[in-house]
Amino acid sequence: MNETRPVRGVLLDLSGVLYVGDSALPGAVEAVHRLRASGLPLRFVTNTTRQPRTRIAHKLKAMGFPIAENEIFTPTHAALDYLQENGLRPHLLVHPDLRAEFAGVDTHAPNAVVLGDAAGDFNYDSLNAAFRLLMEGAQLLALGDNRYFLEPDGLSLDIGPFKTALEYAADVSARVLGKPAPAFFHQAAAALGCAPTETLMIGDDAATDVEGALRAGLQGLLVRTGKYRDGDEERIDAQEPLVQNDLPAAVEWILGGC
Amino acid sequence: MNETRPVRGVLLDLSGVLYVGDSALPGAVEAVHRLRASGLPLRFVTNTTRQPRTRIAHKLKAMGFPIAENEIFTPTHAALDYLQENGLRPHLLVHPDLRAEFAGVDTHAPNAVVLGDAAGDFNYDSLNAAFRLLMEGAQLLALGDNRYFLEPDGLSLDIGPFKTALEYAADVSARVLGKPAPAFFHQAAAALGCAPTETLMIGDDAATDVEGALRAGLQGLLVRTGKYRDGDEERIDAQEPLVQNDLPAAVEWILGGC
Repeated sequence: MNETRPVRGVLLDLSGVLYVGDSALPGAVEAVHRLRASGLPLRFVTNTTRQPRTRIAHKLKAMGFPIAENEIFTPTHAALDYLQENGLRPHLLVHPDLRAEFAGVDTHAPNAVVLGDAAGDFNYDSLNAAFRLLMEGAQLLALGDNRYFLEPDGLSLDIGPFKTALEYAADVSARVLGKPAPAFFHQAAAALGCAPTETLMIGDDAATDVEGALRAGLQGLLVRTGKYRDGDEERIDAQEPLVQNDLPAAVEWILGGC
Repeated sequence: MNETRPVRGVLLDLSGVLYVGDSALPGAVEAVHRLRASGLPLRFVTNTTRQPRTRIAHKLKAMGFPIAENEIFTPTHAALDYLQENGLRPHLLVHPDLRAEFAGVDTHAPNAVVLGDAAGDFNYDSLNAAFRLLMEGAQLLALGDNRYFLEPDGLSLDIGPFKTALEYAADVSARVLGKPAPAFFHQAAAALGCAPTETLMIGDDAATDVEGALRAGLQGLLVRTGKYRDGDEERIDAQEPLVQNDLPAAVEWILGGC
């Protein structure tokens, strides 16, 4: 075991930690096997708001990772947990590919708005319908707050601008469900059955994964794979993070096999 | 003449000062005639972003007001002036009824985005096209920044939320052309050929018309007609405004006929 705080549950980012593109990183499949054999509860945490969990699980399985669908924790699943715990009925403004994830959820007389990366479903009428519900007191849940993302033909608007528009229009603040929002890390820790302080987040993004986790009171471990660039750990504006070269080294550190 | 600063040009709000609904206020037509006979330059200033100037002029004429089309100053005309003075070519995201006002303007290789209350023309693709231009350095001009307005079937999103979305996405600040933005009052004064300090704004909206004008360095006069409610003048967070009962009394005050 490490000499700092005990680790009783582990959250792992996906892209850049387990794989890059469609290829598992060297030793990553074995590292997940080893971590699972240790008995530590695991969740694989991603901010994706266009892919349903079945498709993510399928991709991971194809690369050889022993990961069950219900171990994948996305903003959608944080939203589903939050809606259930708070007795909320959502109005959905999400990507068409995500609607099936909300099958079975009561959407009658909505008292919440779930805002995702709705892409072509964003238009004046759909935004206005969400706005009117907010003016009647519905809660706003946002499946992220990125400004934009890169598409083959250029930069495109992500959730953040639409969240900001609705917040401004209705004078409300959204609950953001996605890294690096503290509430999201807390929900992921709760899904492990762990206190935040006992939970370790492993990621390749110094800001979103590691600084976010540290600010939420979790432990954070930065790996030097994926989007990591030299010196990223020095840009973290929180306590000093743990750093390891890659996932196998991180697992070795967790399990204390030195 | 009044004993404070000289008035060399007058800006008048429309609804609530000249008329309510489709009816001229008592004495308002005669007051405009009297003001015009004095030789003071006049502009009639409105924030409307759905009605072209021809339609506004037609309505005023039908009520008996002696007002020429080119005396009506709207955010659209502030935008047209600004585009011309700065050699800008706009990409238009405005209400379909306003497009004709931009006829003849060079929109080739746009280096500005003019954002209006585009209503049904707001959708993911149209917002994304504006966003991409902003990321390439285009200036953002907004024909207002209200949060919402009342439609027969409920509250509806106005320009403000869409302006805020684009500002957040591209990390820019819009130039707002509309009351109460100082730049808008300065452009209206310039259209009169007057310095801001020599220009008097008459309005029934304590915040948008009068406080806005005072903050921009103009003189401000609040009339107790239209949307005026008892005590509005006390809510103005700037120097003390002039207050008169209605437009005829305001004109009497300006022309010093005591």
